[in-house]
Amino acid sequence: MSEPTVRDTAGDTAAVRAAVRESAAAGRRAAGPLAALSRAERDAALEVIADALLDHADTVLEANRQDVASAPDLRPRDTDAVLDRLRLDAGQIAEMAATMRHVATLPDPIGENTRSTVLPSGLDVQRIRVPLGVVAFVHEGRPNATVDAAALCLKSGNAVLLRGSSVARRTDTALISVIRDALATTAVPVDAVQRVPGTTRASVRELMTATGLIDLLIPRGGTDLIRTVRVGATVPVIENGIGNCHVYVDEHADPAMALSVLLDAKTQRPSTCNAAESLLVHSRIADAFLPDALAALRALGVTVHGDPHVRSYDDTVVPATEEDWATEYLSLDLSAAVVDSLDEAAAHIRRYGSGHTEAIVTDSPAHARHFASAVDTAVIAVNLSTRCVDGAEMGLGAEIGISTQKLHARGPMGTKALTTTTYVLTGGGHVRGTPPAPPS
Amino acid sequence: MSEPTVRDTAGDTAAVRAAVRESAAAGRRAAGPLAALSRAERDAALEVIADALLDHADTVLEANRQDVASAPDLRPRDTDAVLDRLRLDAGQIAEMAATMRHVATLPDPIGENTRSTVLPSGLDVQRIRVPLGVVAFVHEGRPNATVDAAALCLKSGNAVLLRGSSVARRTDTALISVIRDALATTAVPVDAVQRVPGTTRASVRELMTATGLIDLLIPRGGTDLIRTVRVGATVPVIENGIGNCHVYVDEHADPAMALSVLLDAKTQRPSTCNAAESLLVHSRIADAFLPDALAALRALGVTVHGDPHVRSYDDTVVPATEEDWATEYLSLDLSAAVVDSLDEAAAHIRRYGSGHTEAIVTDSPAHARHFASAVDTAVIAVNLSTRCVDGAEMGLGAEIGISTQKLHARGPMGTKALTTTTYVLTGGGHVRGTPPAPPS
Repeated sequence: MSEPTVRDTAGDTAAVRAAVRESAAAGRRAAGPLAALSRAERDAALEVIADALLDHADTVLEANRQDVASAPDLRPRDTDAVLDRLRLDAGQIAEMAATMRHVATLPDPIGENTRSTVLPSGLDVQRIRVPLGVVAFVHEGRPNATVDAAALCLKSGNAVLLRGSSVARRTDTALISVIRDALATTAVPVDAVQRVPGTTRASVRELMTATGLIDLLIPRGGTDLIRTVRVGATVPVIENGIGNCHVYVDEHADPAMALSVLLDAKTQRPSTCNAAESLLVHSRIADAFLPDALAALRALGVTVHGDPHVRSYDDTVVPATEEDWATEYLSLDLSAAVVDSLDEAAAHIRRYGSGHTEAIVTDSPAHARHFASAVDTAVIAVNLSTRCVDGAEMGLGAEIGISTQKLHARGPMGTKALTTTTYVLTGGGHVRGTPPAPPS
Repeated sequence: MSEPTVRDTAGDTAAVRAAVRESAAAGRRAAGPLAALSRAERDAALEVIADALLDHADTVLEANRQDVASAPDLRPRDTDAVLDRLRLDAGQIAEMAATMRHVATLPDPIGENTRSTVLPSGLDVQRIRVPLGVVAFVHEGRPNATVDAAALCLKSGNAVLLRGSSVARRTDTALISVIRDALATTAVPVDAVQRVPGTTRASVRELMTATGLIDLLIPRGGTDLIRTVRVGATVPVIENGIGNCHVYVDEHADPAMALSVLLDAKTQRPSTCNAAESLLVHSRIADAFLPDALAALRALGVTVHGDPHVRSYDDTVVPATEEDWATEYLSLDLSAAVVDSLDEAAAHIRRYGSGHTEAIVTDSPAHARHFASAVDTAVIAVNLSTRCVDGAEMGLGAEIGISTQKLHARGPMGTKALTTTTYVLTGGGHVRGTPPAPPS
């Protein structure tokens, strides 16, 4: 196994930090040769990894069983979400392999010419897409995120440092060992994919401050992780995956469509960042929509945290607190309020939303446009479930996350989000000024 | 005059910080109405500002004369650069007005559809370019940077907070007052352009941490400013304008072209970030190139800080220290070394360069390509002066700076660098899962 043998204990902070820095340096050393590989070489490596994942599925599943069995005691509310993210079966391993092969078929983002012009001065201007270099990905213990990130980073010519949750330690170790052993038989340097040593916050802090070694840090996880990174990072960061997503049922909504969208958005997979966490209903449609919706939610096991107007329809609705409006439950909980206008809905979302995905159900294209301009978010979803907002669903092949920030990449992030560009200007001795007088 | 009347003293830190935060909040309030304006309304405002700059040129020039007269004592080495950046004349005011009018003619970046597709599921996917919101620009006391930033931000529908150097305080105050008085007669909210109160580091610290109020902070200035922002910022940042730019004279260079490029890059305007600071010469061309080059540099007043090989040609060359290789002089100083290979040159640049602009003079396209792939930088300049790397020169209309980071924008930043995108997905009640069973 190619996995580094650093001790993985919380106590040994200095050693973990040194090991993290050495991993980052090894990633930097791998990035140059990796960037110079051809598309065929990178794609071939993805195919080899796909084969290896299938060949070693049993090893990975056994490690995953141990992780599930020893998942630490969690707050009861979190247990379902954590285990849902963590647990693997043979079908999911096959999906991981299929993702590798699918990403190999995607267009090569590297070398793409994003600007090509000859200026009136004769200066030739080309802008070429190149890898970022070294990407660090800190995530929340969803093993398929480990594999998706490796696939997208290798496809886009980047070395990647993967740091999952301690809950998934054995699974991640097994997956990354399989990937590294596979890479050893390809043109891709083995250190292009590394598991970050250590599972404590110390390892994240070291990643956050490895200026010069890490070109992009993607934190995907809870509010605490995002805040820690925002305050402490000195390397470039793209924040990911906080999804306090709303479904707004407009006065011009079809109640049946609104109900179907709402139930899917809330219950199809509550542990994901694109699940709905909050429902806003226009007062003019409340009588027609809410009684059926609240009954359907109750039947599906959803606890609704409602404002007084919502509670007036159903006495199983619990009172919503200020905290509820801002909470990403990731569970079968939903906050709900009645609003008197589209603008009131937009103002609520601007105040409490996380800039991820905001849905409106409406038959009015004018209302959809107004909603889109009044809400500042990565994705506006008109008449569809928030759960459909996903890089793979949207044709990106896979996603390393859904960016909730405005710079570089906003919304689902695929291979292009993992690249930058270099301008290559070619002249014939062009100068800016009048040539200086020849030397005396 | 619309300029806020906050006291501008270093002593009153808490008041300055509160005032900065109120400016940011006012920018946020202006951003919504500004984003909703049409292209015609934004362009008309730029024209009104151009007229106002010409009408009030005398006021601005008088303020500038006072700034120049009272420029504080500076380290002698810095004086020329600071005064060169600071000093204005009537021709430069006319250029500012011309820039406003030129930016008005540029294509509108807002509303551009950057992705438009209908997925096999029937889901309609549009990605629309939108303003970032509120941009804060901290710069080094070059008054035309104030005007360029205002032009580019208004064109791209962003509110802007401008924070120049204390050296240019009166000039900036006059310029921004002219702009705000002009805006008062247009559809653009006056608070779309604000001078940040305070000229001490406290005001920068407040900008850096105004999460939720500022969407992008652009620091353009010295290494100290960039480091302070990198460590302390919690808002998104694009680092700008540190240019330790190299000119590498390849063994296959035309010596005459190399000399012309070098002299322009070093001496045409030494105070700018795209001036050359370091010369690398292949050992095979050193005898043919360096004696003439060193004589020409000396005749133009350039102090060369050389390695022993360079010093062997000319005893006026002073010994280069380790610090010299890493220094952005912004003056008539140049570090110089002889290297034995293109790879040695690239390794030197990777070690000491700032990722801004790296030039190679060569007749070999293969060497140019190798240089481009071995050096990790925003701009590769093949056979041209580094001074030609400039947004205006490259057809962007103007630039708010030259990004030396890899995310979002790399190289000269024009209007598109001041935008983000929103995905607008439109479905017909699309859901991710099988519809749940109807409620019992």
